[in-house]
Amino acid sequence: MLEATAFDAASFRRAVECVVARLDAYLRDCSTRGLALTDPSALLDAARALMRGEHDPLSPLDEHKLDAIVDLYIRTGIQVHSPGFMGRQFSGVIPLAAVVDLIGSTVNQPSSFYEAAQLPNVAERIMAEELNRFIGWTPGRSAMVTTSGASLANLTALLAARNDRFPQLWSEGLASLGGEARPAIAMGEDAHYSISRAAGILGIGGEQIVRLPMNRQRQIRADGVRAALRAAAGRGLRVFCLVGSAGTTPVGAFDPIGPLATVAEEEGLWLHVDAAHGASLLVSDRLRHKLHGIERADSFSWDAHKMMFVPAMCTLLFYRDKEKSYGAFRQDASYVFEREPDAYSAFESAAQSFECTKRPLIMGLWVLWALYGRSIFAKKIEYLCRLAADARRILGEQPDFEALHEPEANILCFRYAPVNLRKPAPPDFQVAIRNRIRRAGRFFISKVDLDGETALRVVFMNHRTDTGHFRMLLDEIRAAGRAVLAGADGDA
Amino acid sequence: MLEATAFDAASFRRAVECVVARLDAYLRDCSTRGLALTDPSALLDAARALMRGEHDPLSPLDEHKLDAIVDLYIRTGIQVHSPGFMGRQFSGVIPLAAVVDLIGSTVNQPSSFYEAAQLPNVAERIMAEELNRFIGWTPGRSAMVTTSGASLANLTALLAARNDRFPQLWSEGLASLGGEARPAIAMGEDAHYSISRAAGILGIGGEQIVRLPMNRQRQIRADGVRAALRAAAGRGLRVFCLVGSAGTTPVGAFDPIGPLATVAEEEGLWLHVDAAHGASLLVSDRLRHKLHGIERADSFSWDAHKMMFVPAMCTLLFYRDKEKSYGAFRQDASYVFEREPDAYSAFESAAQSFECTKRPLIMGLWVLWALYGRSIFAKKIEYLCRLAADARRILGEQPDFEALHEPEANILCFRYAPVNLRKPAPPDFQVAIRNRIRRAGRFFISKVDLDGETALRVVFMNHRTDTGHFRMLLDEIRAAGRAVLAGADGDA
Repeated sequence: MLEATAFDAASFRRAVECVVARLDAYLRDCSTRGLALTDPSALLDAARALMRGEHDPLSPLDEHKLDAIVDLYIRTGIQVHSPGFMGRQFSGVIPLAAVVDLIGSTVNQPSSFYEAAQLPNVAERIMAEELNRFIGWTPGRSAMVTTSGASLANLTALLAARNDRFPQLWSEGLASLGGEARPAIAMGEDAHYSISRAAGILGIGGEQIVRLPMNRQRQIRADGVRAALRAAAGRGLRVFCLVGSAGTTPVGAFDPIGPLATVAEEEGLWLHVDAAHGASLLVSDRLRHKLHGIERADSFSWDAHKMMFVPAMCTLLFYRDKEKSYGAFRQDASYVFEREPDAYSAFESAAQSFECTKRPLIMGLWVLWALYGRSIFAKKIEYLCRLAADARRILGEQPDFEALHEPEANILCFRYAPVNLRKPAPPDFQVAIRNRIRRAGRFFISKVDLDGETALRVVFMNHRTDTGHFRMLLDEIRAAGRAVLAGADGDA
Repeated sequence: MLEATAFDAASFRRAVECVVARLDAYLRDCSTRGLALTDPSALLDAARALMRGEHDPLSPLDEHKLDAIVDLYIRTGIQVHSPGFMGRQFSGVIPLAAVVDLIGSTVNQPSSFYEAAQLPNVAERIMAEELNRFIGWTPGRSAMVTTSGASLANLTALLAARNDRFPQLWSEGLASLGGEARPAIAMGEDAHYSISRAAGILGIGGEQIVRLPMNRQRQIRADGVRAALRAAAGRGLRVFCLVGSAGTTPVGAFDPIGPLATVAEEEGLWLHVDAAHGASLLVSDRLRHKLHGIERADSFSWDAHKMMFVPAMCTLLFYRDKEKSYGAFRQDASYVFEREPDAYSAFESAAQSFECTKRPLIMGLWVLWALYGRSIFAKKIEYLCRLAADARRILGEQPDFEALHEPEANILCFRYAPVNLRKPAPPDFQVAIRNRIRRAGRFFISKVDLDGETALRVVFMNHRTDTGHFRMLLDEIRAAGRAVLAGADGDA
């Protein structure tokens, strides 16, 4: 036996009480605030100062130090619960989901295997069935696998696609193709970087990515896909997978999934949809139509830590055909995989998951769904998409702003473009504005490159944000822009 | 604005109080217990019964339902905090680390980018420096990246190795090699399945894995590596990476890292060490020698959710040469990557991490380290390794048990092998025993295949477990074995 207060339940309770007091105040704070951007070396010193030297294992928890750490953690972080947070696709969480993570991290039941995490494995099955109500696949025929982020979900799906079309490559490797036509992936220009990364990782190579033409709304032009595929074949490429997005990271565009599915079916391609951001719209009766055709995709990814408002990360990877979900990874590992599936292993995801040890990712989402039902998700998503439409309308009323697209979800990109300037705006004008806004610490927005030019980008993730906040943001952008033009800004 | 009690701080506080009452009782329970293995369909019904239908968004949190969910979650899970838990390499956590996850999940600061999670990024830098005290690299020259599990860390390291040796493959793909010599990886027979999986994923192919000979202790025989490499070259393979383990998953064997490093240096190979399980021994002055030579590895992985006792997952990937850590992934994505690194981006891991959104994985470990220092880790690890040695000695005193190796860390494999049986034991004797133990619900142990035969396996992860519990386990194995031999066991 080893005695140390660190292992005691009493320390646990004291730590919770200390932490919850801070978190409660944090969640009650509705002020409009962005980021308190801190110099890393100053923060390094502050954090180092909170570390103590060697510790007497029998002395009690140092609540004072813990409190100071929590305070620093909260103050220096991105303020996802503030109406001033409009910059990224992760969210202020529904607080109960964070409490569920406390349970998960205390009882520590990794969920790849049924025997280690029985309820999480069952909850995965339940959520797969619940969410399939909005997809519409034949019950029991499809599969859902939880994984650690959409980059991993996209990689896994592309791997399943590669192995489905070229089953020998898992063992023989791509070098065995020996100068024959090269495996390739077709995707839209605005697909997430994890797709092109996956081409590099999987041995396909970035040069074997076929970029599909976009329309003005930055959606894939389905009528241009066949020509692109023919051109690719002419260059010796064998496209096996077509990747759509719903919606894209830069502007939240939804590719036309139905027409893409038609092409994929006719050409014998695997259709994967990166719906990390947009799949949550499925739970809304009003917005589901944006994903029309998703039931014809072979696979799609869905980040619940985006618009289902659970803590990062909780990614769901769906396969239309359950059998294909077993094709991504294949090997033998006796200490984990049962040779013969039994009633237990039928419920577990080890053979379909990249991870061996995996957090019980589903639990936050399931508990929210169990206690609150679908409506809070649907209502919040509808509110955020409506807010983006309202913001677009407001932009249209401002002569000194230029909207770059019609928002399809909760992302809106635009530029501050005042007319009649005495001299042209500097080349990094939008970046300089964004940095100035960030530094001012009242709003947090992002930037994006569209066709080689930088724009400002807001992502509405918070139901506390309203059009009043957006108008305040525009005023702050104007002030920042004027300061930049006046040369008052040293920092680009 | 959208009103719903689900978003309120008051609901958060009520949920925490409800949950903490259960978790406190759970952590106080020192009883010896294994798994309450439940039929999945019965659990499915129980979980479904806890879901309510549509919810009035203004009604308060249903604490009764939440309490029932927590109770079910705890009861049906693997009992990592019980002395009866001896089956897997994840651990009963140091409770404060779970509380830190509550903070992380509430404030939701994904940590790939400095601006989103300033303190986590700084804490990564601090822990890299703290842990490097036990590795010994020149300060500032190496890199540490957090990632979601050792499977991902191993994949990332192998990718960095592949891209280092064959830089053109990221763009051109492996098919471009066109029948030339094929890239290959050399590893021990007992390397974790994520290594051979990585060969499949990266397009190298499982056939390009060179399996290195082992000694009786199931360590790689360093004196056999060169011959294996020559034979591989003769088959047209270009081995670019040598993978050692410290320790292996089946028996916890530590490959001889120093001698492997010598071969790797002479042959121009990347040396990666999968030290997911064993790297934690570095923090112990008594046990560090097991990893002698680790400072000569190009990369190694370290699961803090194993023997640093934080919740799954917290994996650290170390690179000796910081520059090489940027070689795993390369592409452009304007909305996340700055074109020019600045004081902030120098602290962030987005370019080195597989994940785009990533949990602030380091925070539990850093807070424990800050408040408790190194000693609780070192003492607990030393206790667990000593317990394995004691258990080995106890086994040696039992004529009806057969130990299969000398434990090098906290893993011990053995068989129940009673002599003078009237008829031979059935072929699945050890599996039947293991399943019977699992069903009895007092101890949780695992099984492992060694050279095609199944053995029992214990992993000591809990300081509450002592030799008395191990003796009780042996008695229970005897009783289970007798019952199996008597044919009282229908379930293999």
